[in-house]
Amino acid sequence: MKNININWVPDKSSKVPIYKQIVHYVCNRISNGDWIAGSKLPSQRKLAELFQVNRSTIVAAMEELQSYGILKSNVGGGTMLASNTWSMLMSKVTPDWGYYIKSGTFRANIPTIQMINKFEFVEGFVRLSTGELAPSIFPHNMLKNVLQKLPERITSLNYLEPLGLLELRQAISKRLEKQGIYVPASCILITSGSLQALQLISICMLKSGSTVYTEDPSYTKSLQLFQSAGIKLVGLPMDNEGITYWGIAGMKGQKRNSLLYTIPSFHNPIGSVMSLRRRQELFRFCTNNGLPIVEDNAYGELWFDEEPPKPLKSMDKNGMILYLGTVSKTLGPGLRIGWLVGPESVVERLGDVKMQIDYGASSVSQWMAAEFFSSGLYDEHLTHIRHQLKKRRDIMLSALNRYFKDLGYWNIPMGSFYIWLELKHPISTKKLFNEALKEKLLVNPGDIYNFSQNGAIRLSYAYASEEDLWNGIKKLAKIILRV
Amino acid sequence: MKNININWVPDKSSKVPIYKQIVHYVCNRISNGDWIAGSKLPSQRKLAELFQVNRSTIVAAMEELQSYGILKSNVGGGTMLASNTWSMLMSKVTPDWGYYIKSGTFRANIPTIQMINKFEFVEGFVRLSTGELAPSIFPHNMLKNVLQKLPERITSLNYLEPLGLLELRQAISKRLEKQGIYVPASCILITSGSLQALQLISICMLKSGSTVYTEDPSYTKSLQLFQSAGIKLVGLPMDNEGITYWGIAGMKGQKRNSLLYTIPSFHNPIGSVMSLRRRQELFRFCTNNGLPIVEDNAYGELWFDEEPPKPLKSMDKNGMILYLGTVSKTLGPGLRIGWLVGPESVVERLGDVKMQIDYGASSVSQWMAAEFFSSGLYDEHLTHIRHQLKKRRDIMLSALNRYFKDLGYWNIPMGSFYIWLELKHPISTKKLFNEALKEKLLVNPGDIYNFSQNGAIRLSYAYASEEDLWNGIKKLAKIILRV
Repeated sequence: MKNININWVPDKSSKVPIYKQIVHYVCNRISNGDWIAGSKLPSQRKLAELFQVNRSTIVAAMEELQSYGILKSNVGGGTMLASNTWSMLMSKVTPDWGYYIKSGTFRANIPTIQMINKFEFVEGFVRLSTGELAPSIFPHNMLKNVLQKLPERITSLNYLEPLGLLELRQAISKRLEKQGIYVPASCILITSGSLQALQLISICMLKSGSTVYTEDPSYTKSLQLFQSAGIKLVGLPMDNEGITYWGIAGMKGQKRNSLLYTIPSFHNPIGSVMSLRRRQELFRFCTNNGLPIVEDNAYGELWFDEEPPKPLKSMDKNGMILYLGTVSKTLGPGLRIGWLVGPESVVERLGDVKMQIDYGASSVSQWMAAEFFSSGLYDEHLTHIRHQLKKRRDIMLSALNRYFKDLGYWNIPMGSFYIWLELKHPISTKKLFNEALKEKLLVNPGDIYNFSQNGAIRLSYAYASEEDLWNGIKKLAKIILRV
Repeated sequence: MKNININWVPDKSSKVPIYKQIVHYVCNRISNGDWIAGSKLPSQRKLAELFQVNRSTIVAAMEELQSYGILKSNVGGGTMLASNTWSMLMSKVTPDWGYYIKSGTFRANIPTIQMINKFEFVEGFVRLSTGELAPSIFPHNMLKNVLQKLPERITSLNYLEPLGLLELRQAISKRLEKQGIYVPASCILITSGSLQALQLISICMLKSGSTVYTEDPSYTKSLQLFQSAGIKLVGLPMDNEGITYWGIAGMKGQKRNSLLYTIPSFHNPIGSVMSLRRRQELFRFCTNNGLPIVEDNAYGELWFDEEPPKPLKSMDKNGMILYLGTVSKTLGPGLRIGWLVGPESVVERLGDVKMQIDYGASSVSQWMAAEFFSSGLYDEHLTHIRHQLKKRRDIMLSALNRYFKDLGYWNIPMGSFYIWLELKHPISTKKLFNEALKEKLLVNPGDIYNFSQNGAIRLSYAYASEEDLWNGIKKLAKIILRV
């Protein structure tokens, strides 16, 4: 039976009497199909507490609802929602939403991710799952500075050019030169984050039966966007230099409409960096086979001591590569700003479809990113968070050394957010996830990334407080020993 | 032959010599496939102008490019891009992007709309096409005010809840009460504009073979999002009370997985308002037939003298209707903020997929909208723009009375942005569009909205300056007489 979930309070400043507002609210929840006939209502005292009103108001509302036949007294005491003719009638004419929401081609998120998405917004959880910067590292003063300058720039909130704000694309073009990538603004498309770039690629350039080759494990495994479009996702194992691309040569299947997706620098979830030699080999292999590459460089700027090798895109003299960048991992995903760099023909096709599915990214976000880049604040901020992230990495590594020596193996990431923890004695990571949940600890079980084996966990040291990093690892070890 | 299009200038602060930057740029454009071998280069003088450099720099760059075999002298004088072995080799290994960009399921925008999207960003056009508020009505001081308050609210730019910022959903819930719609925040999903709500509905709740019934003409006709998913779009004529819904009863086809899309208040492109009686009848018809309604109320708040009847959603006691709202037509589409109101099961399904395609709307935009609503500035602004829009409507009506008496018929809109001009002597609106384009006048030809007849034009009095409104209509009349 569905729970009766009350997260609304009456508006005390409204002209509508409070008990009437409660009557409306209850009717609406029932008629919407949110509350099911037969459900038991909380006690009057509990209701008064939930609605933040006096008992007498609750009594008045319930009397009215009873007079409509919507509530009835329960045999064992208490009150329940009546399954009277009125609500029966309603449920008949309500559209069969259950049928509709199962009809679409786009699949639901996998249940573990749905749960993570939900519990990340419940207070009191230690989040070793979260691939976002801790609020304590957020550049609040810079934000203030940037917001203050916006009114000079923003003269309306109308639509921007189909490819995105020109100033922002020019600033990105300039930044890319430092990476050895020389492209004009007309080869850059602003997207609502990198995820949207992948969505655009899947609906504009691939089709049912196409293959996307990628690292195993891979973050894309956890996404349903390729799978929903009937695209096959094939994982290739990684060795200590990077993806073992040569596996593709022996595979059967439709290669003409396929591509390779890779995160060469600070891979998600592994945290590893592809060597320069592997980059060169991979690029040559893909060029010889006419296999385009989608290079995701979301984490490339977050190195600790040494820059990773230049992006694959810097070798690209023949438009082989669609390159993805974003500020999601450096400033925050809430801006929803990413960019795709590629041949004009591709960028224009994707930009045209972007105009049809959401009409462009938020222009305020675009102005903010442009201001962060051109003011120099962005680079200043990068220096700061590199330092902070390294400190956090070291705390987590110390905790792992203390509590996981006998339990697992892990890498030492040279940048970005993640440690990939492989357990010595594989256990069900699903079970582990659920047990950790009970103790208010969130981790990402490896099976949402793995194509084959199991028994790993992705840990993030980016989000939780420094104290929670240590205690979270300690608690995790205890749970593993128990499960 | 593809044009050589130069919209880049060297970075004079860079350490890379300027002539080298130009060499890189030219190589990249060619290797990207943007510039095709055999194309003629502009003169050296013209190039110096375009790149904003001295002639001598151009000479140095061209010598180097010639030494690579990339440029060669033309017989008739001038310089062209060589089709040498180097570029031949390159074109062989470049992925067949042409094949890829034709492979996706999502269709390209119709050519007229692609052109409108493009020319709206070219200086000097009179835009009677644009469904956006004129920059002169933009509430610049309010924006400043709102931006100043954001640093107090924003403590990080991390992801928000899957359904969107709670404060914003609560503010919307409160606003909806004034329209007779009582829903808790848990039945509201924040979208990146209303267009994204339609995109989500099409990929989550409909399937190939489903039918979407709508008014004829309709703005959805100009969108490829339903058609791309294999969904059938059926237009129903309108009489002076609104959509003639009874036509559906006699139609064959899959009804189980279909829905009706309507804009009852200030219809786009017609500008009309559905009568209260028609709303009641339509609602009863859809209820009896289990046909869900998507009600788009983007324009409802932009009435001039009198509020339109309450939304269909206010009659909805059984979750029949998915209601769409937005600030795109009142504040500006650049915020990319809209909302979908419906049963919890539907809202949760759409929210889950939204997390998978772009991970939510910009959080800065969401905070801004919340601040606009809760501060009372939004309502103050509405009062102001209603007055301004009415004034603009009157200017356009005067111009039509002056220049179109013998040429067409039009409605007198009681709110919003649009006048639907039907020509007495139908001409090809495609030809008209192209002729107007030559004279730097943008109008939306009716055939992008019409299911059947032709010969109408959608005029917007929202965007152009008051002077241009008058002169634009005058110019349009002249062109029509000539075509």
